[in-house]
Amino acid sequence: MSDYPSVKDLTVEEKAALTSGTNPWSLGNVEAKGLPNYTITDGPHGLRKAQNTESMDVEQNVPATCFPPAAGLSSSWNPELIERVGEAMGEECIQEKVAVILGPGVNIKRNPLGGRCFEYWSEDPYLAGHEAVGVVKGVQSKGVGTSLKHFAANNQETDRLRISATVSRRALREIYLPAFEHIVKTAQPWTVMCSYNRINGVHSSQNRWLLTDVLRGEWGFEGIVMSDWGAVHDRVASLNAGLNLEMPPSGTDDQIVRAALDGRITPKQLDEMAQGMIDLVDKARPAMSIEGYRYDVDAHDAIARQAAVESMVLLKNEGGILPVAKGAKVAVIGEFARTPRYQGAGSSLINPTRLTSFLDALEAEGIKADFAPGFTLDGAEQDPALTEQAVKAAEGADTVLLFLGLPAEYESEGFDRETLSIPAKQIDLLEAVAAANENVVVVLSNGSVVSLPWRGKAKAVLETWLLGQAGGAALADVIFGKVSPSGKLSQTIIDDINDDPSMVNWPGEEGHVDYGEGVFVGYRYYDTFGKAVTYPFGYGLSYATFAIDGVTAEKTGPRAVRVSATVTNTSKVAGAETVQVYVAPPKAKVARPVHELKGFAKVRLEPGESKAVEIELDERAFAYWSETFDDWHVEGGSYAIEVGVSSRDIADTVTVEIDDDGKIMDLDEWSTYGEWLDDPIGAPILQHVLADMEAEAGHPIIQASALMTMFLRSMPLNGLGVILGDEGRRLAADLVEAYRKATAK
Amino acid sequence: MSDYPSVKDLTVEEKAALTSGTNPWSLGNVEAKGLPNYTITDGPHGLRKAQNTESMDVEQNVPATCFPPAAGLSSSWNPELIERVGEAMGEECIQEKVAVILGPGVNIKRNPLGGRCFEYWSEDPYLAGHEAVGVVKGVQSKGVGTSLKHFAANNQETDRLRISATVSRRALREIYLPAFEHIVKTAQPWTVMCSYNRINGVHSSQNRWLLTDVLRGEWGFEGIVMSDWGAVHDRVASLNAGLNLEMPPSGTDDQIVRAALDGRITPKQLDEMAQGMIDLVDKARPAMSIEGYRYDVDAHDAIARQAAVESMVLLKNEGGILPVAKGAKVAVIGEFARTPRYQGAGSSLINPTRLTSFLDALEAEGIKADFAPGFTLDGAEQDPALTEQAVKAAEGADTVLLFLGLPAEYESEGFDRETLSIPAKQIDLLEAVAAANENVVVVLSNGSVVSLPWRGKAKAVLETWLLGQAGGAALADVIFGKVSPSGKLSQTIIDDINDDPSMVNWPGEEGHVDYGEGVFVGYRYYDTFGKAVTYPFGYGLSYATFAIDGVTAEKTGPRAVRVSATVTNTSKVAGAETVQVYVAPPKAKVARPVHELKGFAKVRLEPGESKAVEIELDERAFAYWSETFDDWHVEGGSYAIEVGVSSRDIADTVTVEIDDDGKIMDLDEWSTYGEWLDDPIGAPILQHVLADMEAEAGHPIIQASALMTMFLRSMPLNGLGVILGDEGRRLAADLVEAYRKATAK
Repeated sequence: MSDYPSVKDLTVEEKAALTSGTNPWSLGNVEAKGLPNYTITDGPHGLRKAQNTESMDVEQNVPATCFPPAAGLSSSWNPELIERVGEAMGEECIQEKVAVILGPGVNIKRNPLGGRCFEYWSEDPYLAGHEAVGVVKGVQSKGVGTSLKHFAANNQETDRLRISATVSRRALREIYLPAFEHIVKTAQPWTVMCSYNRINGVHSSQNRWLLTDVLRGEWGFEGIVMSDWGAVHDRVASLNAGLNLEMPPSGTDDQIVRAALDGRITPKQLDEMAQGMIDLVDKARPAMSIEGYRYDVDAHDAIARQAAVESMVLLKNEGGILPVAKGAKVAVIGEFARTPRYQGAGSSLINPTRLTSFLDALEAEGIKADFAPGFTLDGAEQDPALTEQAVKAAEGADTVLLFLGLPAEYESEGFDRETLSIPAKQIDLLEAVAAANENVVVVLSNGSVVSLPWRGKAKAVLETWLLGQAGGAALADVIFGKVSPSGKLSQTIIDDINDDPSMVNWPGEEGHVDYGEGVFVGYRYYDTFGKAVTYPFGYGLSYATFAIDGVTAEKTGPRAVRVSATVTNTSKVAGAETVQVYVAPPKAKVARPVHELKGFAKVRLEPGESKAVEIELDERAFAYWSETFDDWHVEGGSYAIEVGVSSRDIADTVTVEIDDDGKIMDLDEWSTYGEWLDDPIGAPILQHVLADMEAEAGHPIIQASALMTMFLRSMPLNGLGVILGDEGRRLAADLVEAYRKATAK
Repeated sequence: MSDYPSVKDLTVEEKAALTSGTNPWSLGNVEAKGLPNYTITDGPHGLRKAQNTESMDVEQNVPATCFPPAAGLSSSWNPELIERVGEAMGEECIQEKVAVILGPGVNIKRNPLGGRCFEYWSEDPYLAGHEAVGVVKGVQSKGVGTSLKHFAANNQETDRLRISATVSRRALREIYLPAFEHIVKTAQPWTVMCSYNRINGVHSSQNRWLLTDVLRGEWGFEGIVMSDWGAVHDRVASLNAGLNLEMPPSGTDDQIVRAALDGRITPKQLDEMAQGMIDLVDKARPAMSIEGYRYDVDAHDAIARQAAVESMVLLKNEGGILPVAKGAKVAVIGEFARTPRYQGAGSSLINPTRLTSFLDALEAEGIKADFAPGFTLDGAEQDPALTEQAVKAAEGADTVLLFLGLPAEYESEGFDRETLSIPAKQIDLLEAVAAANENVVVVLSNGSVVSLPWRGKAKAVLETWLLGQAGGAALADVIFGKVSPSGKLSQTIIDDINDDPSMVNWPGEEGHVDYGEGVFVGYRYYDTFGKAVTYPFGYGLSYATFAIDGVTAEKTGPRAVRVSATVTNTSKVAGAETVQVYVAPPKAKVARPVHELKGFAKVRLEPGESKAVEIELDERAFAYWSETFDDWHVEGGSYAIEVGVSSRDIADTVTVEIDDDGKIMDLDEWSTYGEWLDDPIGAPILQHVLADMEAEAGHPIIQASALMTMFLRSMPLNGLGVILGDEGRRLAADLVEAYRKATAK
C-alpha cells in the first residue's frame, strides 16, 4: 500500500496543480500532502538532463551515455540488446534522480525526409513496436518510467504544431498505432506523450477517442498521458480528453479549478487525471529514494559499443573487400572519421560521458592509417587542396575507408529534409578517390536514409546510421573483422524520393497532410506494386553466409500458427542472421499489402552451426482493420507464410489455411443484390422470398438477361424499384423483413 | 413570353408531379395546366431512343447516327468538329421528338481501368471542358437540351451506387469540377445529371453544396438538375438539395406533397424546383413543335466519318510505313477489320443508321486485300488454324494491317477493367505475324487505354479508340493517306497500371474510395514526379511534320496573357498540328503540378504553309484552389509558358511575371511567428510591439540563438508562452490586438 495520499485527500486546487508540471522538467509537488517534486528528462537514446531543471535551457546537460539513436538500434533487430540499453538508461536515471525519461518515439517513418527519422524506428509498425518495447522494459525494470511518444501520427516536422494528419481509420490502426498498441499492451509504459499535430482535425492533446477510448479503453493503458512541450491549447478540453499532465506548465491551473467548479469538468474526470499523477509519483518513489547510486560508466559504454556494432548495415561488399586485414595499408578519408556524427539534434541531444572517433579507435588498436579529412562539414565549397590530399592518401593505400554522410545541420527535430542526397562535394570526392583507387569502402553516417546513386564507385558500402558515443570502437570491430556486421534495414532505401508513395502528399499544405497512400507505406508499397528499390526492407549482409531450411507452419489455433525453420551458418566465420516472417494474405475484400512482417528472430551462429527458430503468429498476423466492423477482421483462406532474410529475399514459403473469424456484415436495404446472393444467410432468404413472390405473381420477377444481371448485382436493394418497379420495391421490403426475423433483430 | 403556366398556377400536387418523370424516359406532363410530356433519351455520342419509351427496355432502339464516343472525339482536340457532331445529334432529336439528350459525360478519367473511360473525355479537366462544350453548344443550337453528367466525381463503376469519393476540396475544384464549370458558364446546358455516388459521404442527389451552392450560386446555372437513373434515395432531401427531377419516377410524389405541407420543404424551394421544370418544357417547345422533320442521314454519316478520322492517334510510324500505297499488296488480319468494335456498352449503346467495316471500306474503294480473321472476339482459346491462316496471309504481303483491340465484353458501363492488356491470344498472334512479316501496322480498337508492351513488334501503331459507324471508311482514308492522322492523346498511355498514382486507392473498399493522389492525376503526376510513360498526354504523330517558332507571351492584364506562336508545315503533305500551351507555376505555398494544360489550338496546314495562333490565358490559368481562402488564388511570380505538341515535347518556353491577386491570410494567434515575420502587415507590427515590450522590460524578449529561431519560426503565437513564459503570452496577446486594430477587425 502506498504512503501517498489518494486523490480523495486533495483539494480541487491541489488536484488541478497535479495536472501541470512544477517547472518545465518536473512534476508532482503537492508539498502540503507529501507529494514530492520529481524530475523528468528528454532522451530516447540517453539521458538529457539539464544542469538547471528550472529553465528550458537544454544546452547545458549532465553527462550521460549516448547510445545509438533508434535509426541505428532499429537496424539491430535485437530486442534483448535494446532492453539492455534501456536498463542502462534506467540506471543513469536513478543516479541523476530522474523519474521518467521521455521516450521511446515510435512514430512510423512515413517518408525518409522526415526530420526525426533518426530517432524513430521503422517504416514497419511490427518492427518498431517489437524493438522499442525493449527500451520500455529495460528502463522500467529499474523502477524508472518511460514516455512512449509521440502519440500519434507525428510523422513529419513541417508545421508540426498545427498540421492535421488526414488519415483513414484503417491506416491508423494498421500502420500508425500498432507500435504504440504493442508496447502499451506488453510493457505498460508509465507515461505516454501526446503529439503536437492534429489527427483528422483534432489536436492529439484534445483527442478523447485517442487518449481515452483507444489508449485506455481498448488497450488497457494504466499510466498517465502528458503533453508534448507546448501541445496543450485548451486545458479543459485536454483534461476531459484524458490528458493528465500539461508540459511545460502554463500557469493556468485556475482554468481547471473553474471548470471543475462550474461542471465543465466532472469530479470523476478530474479525480482520474489527478490520481494518475499520484500513482506515477508513487511508482517512482522507490528508485527516487535510492541515495548515492553511481552507474558503471565503462559498462554502459560497452553496451553502447555492442549496440553500435549491431546498428551497422552492410549494404554491399564486392569481392569480400570487408573485413580489412589488420596488416593492410589503409587510407582513412573523410572528416567524419575524426569528427564523428554520432547522434541527432533536438530534444535528444546528449552530452556523452566519452566519445570515440574512428581515428581514436585505430590509435587504441595500434592500427596505423593515413588520414585525410577530404571535406569540411560546413556548407563551404569544396577546397581543392582537401581533394588533392585525399586522392594522394588513396593512391598509396591497399584499401580506402571513405567516411561520408550527412553533416548535423542536414537533419534535426524541427525541420524535414529536402533531399535524400549527401552533400555534392562528398560525392565529387568519392569520384576523385575512386579514380585513384578502386578499393573504396564507403562508411556512411546519417540519421535517415540517403540515396546511393554513386554506389557503383564503391566496392563496399557500410551504412552505420548514427552510432552513439562508442561508434568509433564499434566501427573498428566491424571493419577489421573482430565481429561481423549483422544489421538489417528497418527502412527501405530508394534513390529517387519521388518513388516514395507519400511524396504526392508531402509535407502537406494549408494546414493538413493527406496520408493518401493509406496502408501502403514503405515496403508495403514497393513490394505490392512491384517497384524497384535500391535496397529492400530487412536487407543486410554479413561476413558469414547462412542457409534457411526446414520451413514449416503448424496451426496452433483457428487463426494462429507456429512457424519453424532451421538456420545454418554455412561459412567459416561467426555471424548473426535475422530470420524474417512475412504473411501474404489471399485476395481480400480490401486492398491488402502483398505481405507484411509478422515475426522475426535474430540468431547468432558459430561457423557451421545450426539453430532451430520458432516464431508464433497470432490472430493479428492475419488481420486487417475493417472500417465496416470498426474492428480487426480475419478473412478465412490460404495465407502464404514467407520465411526469408529481407522483404525481397524469401528462402521458402509455406501455406496455411486460416479460419474466418466469423464476423458477418448485416444485410439491409443498402446491401447490393449481389451481396445478398453471396451471403450465407441472405442467399437462402432471397431464394425463398423470390419463389413466394413469383408463385403469387405467376410470372418471373427477375428477367434473365446479361444487362439485367450486371445492373442487379451492383444494385442496392433500395434501387430495385428503379429496375423492377413496384415488384422490386416489394422484393426489397420483404427481404429486409425476412432477414430481420431470421437474425432476430 | 411563355404560353406555359407559371409555377403560381399549379397546385402542390402538380408541382410535386413535375419533380419526377412521367415515365422512365419522359418528363413534364401536367395536362390540366397544358404542360406536355416530352421524351428524353440516353446517348452522348448519338441518340439512344427506345422504341417503347414506357419501359426500361433499352435494347430496341430507333436508328441514329453513331458518332465516335468521347474516347475518340476527345483525341481530335477539335471543339468545332465536336460542335458539328452536336448539331447533328440535335437534328436527330428534332426528328425523333426528343427534348433532351443525356450527355456529354465529362467525368475525369482518374484511372484508365474505369469502365466508362470510353465515354468520358480526358484525364485533364481543361481539355474535357473545352472539347465537350462543343456537344452542348451544337445540340442546344438546335433548340434541344443536353444533360451534363455525371455531377460529380463518378470516376469508376465499382460500387458506383454507394461508394463515397473521399476527395479534397482542392482536387474537386482543380480536377473534378472544372469541366462542368466551364461548360455551365459558357454553354448553359439545359440540364445537369447528378451522379450515383457520394462525395465525402453525401450522395450527389442530396448534396446541396454541390447542386445549389456551387452549381447555381457560384457558376450561375439556370437549368434543372435531374438524377441519374435510380440515384434518388430520399425525395425530400434531394429536392431540398436542389434536385429538380427524379428519374425514373418512383411513384413517391406524395412524399413531396406531405413535406411541402408539413414544412420540411419550403414553398420557395418547391416553387424553384418546379419552375425549373416548367422552364425546361418551355425551352423545348419550339423544337418539339416542328412536325415532319427529317435529318440528312448521309450528311450525318459524313460528319461521323470526319470525326472518326480526327479521333485516330498515330503512336508510332517507323520508316514511314504509313500511309500504305494503294498499289501495295496488303494483308488485313484481325476480326475487328470485319466486325468493328465501334462503340461502348451501357446507356450509350446506339442502333446505327449504317455501319462500315474496314473490309467494307476496302471494297468500296476497290482495294484488294488478303483477309484473315486471326482470332475470335469471344473468350475461347486461340484456334491454331486461325493463326496459321493469318501467318500465311502475312507472308505474302508487302504490308500487314493487324487489327487488335478489346472485345466488347472487356469494357462497359457497369464494371471497371482489371487489366490494361489486350487479350493474350491477340498478342500471341502479333508475335506470330511479326515473325512472318516485319512490316506490321497494328490498328487498335479500344475504348480506353491499353498497354503496349508488344509495340516493338510493330512498325506502326494506330490507336483508333472507338470510331463510330463510319470508322471503316475513315480508317481507309487514313491508312491509305487520303488524310493524315491528327489525333492527340487525351490520356497518358502507360504499360504498367501500377504506375498510375490512383492505384493505391483503386477501386476503393468498404464503401469509400480515397482520391489520395489529390490533384496529381494523369500527366500532372507523371510529369511532376518525373515518371516514365509509354506515350505522353497530348502526343500524336502526323504524316506531315511541323515547326513551332516565334513563341511570345504578352501580358494583357495583371493576371492575363496572350500567347502567340507560328506553326509551319515543314513537309510535303497536308496535315494538322495541335499547339498546346502549358503553364508552369513557380514554387507555391501548395504543391502544384509542374505544368498544366491551359490552352490549345488545332491548325490545319497545307505543305509549306504557316499560320499564326493566339491563345488567351485568363486568371484561372495561373490559379490554384486555396482551401485557406476557400477560393481560387494566384500567387505572384514568374510563370513559364510552355508551347509544345505534347506534355513532354515543348517547342519553346517563355516566362511572364504574373501579379499576385492580393489575397492575404489574416494573422491570428494560430499564425506562426515565422508567418508574422514574413507578412507585409504582420512584420512591422511585430517589430513595433516587440520594441515596446523590450523598452519596457529593459531586456531582450527573444534570445538570439539558432535553436530558439528554429523553434520560434514554426511556433504559433499561442505557443510562445511555452518558450518565453509570461512575456511570450503577453507578446502573443499584444500582437493579435495590434493586428486587429491595424486591419480594423
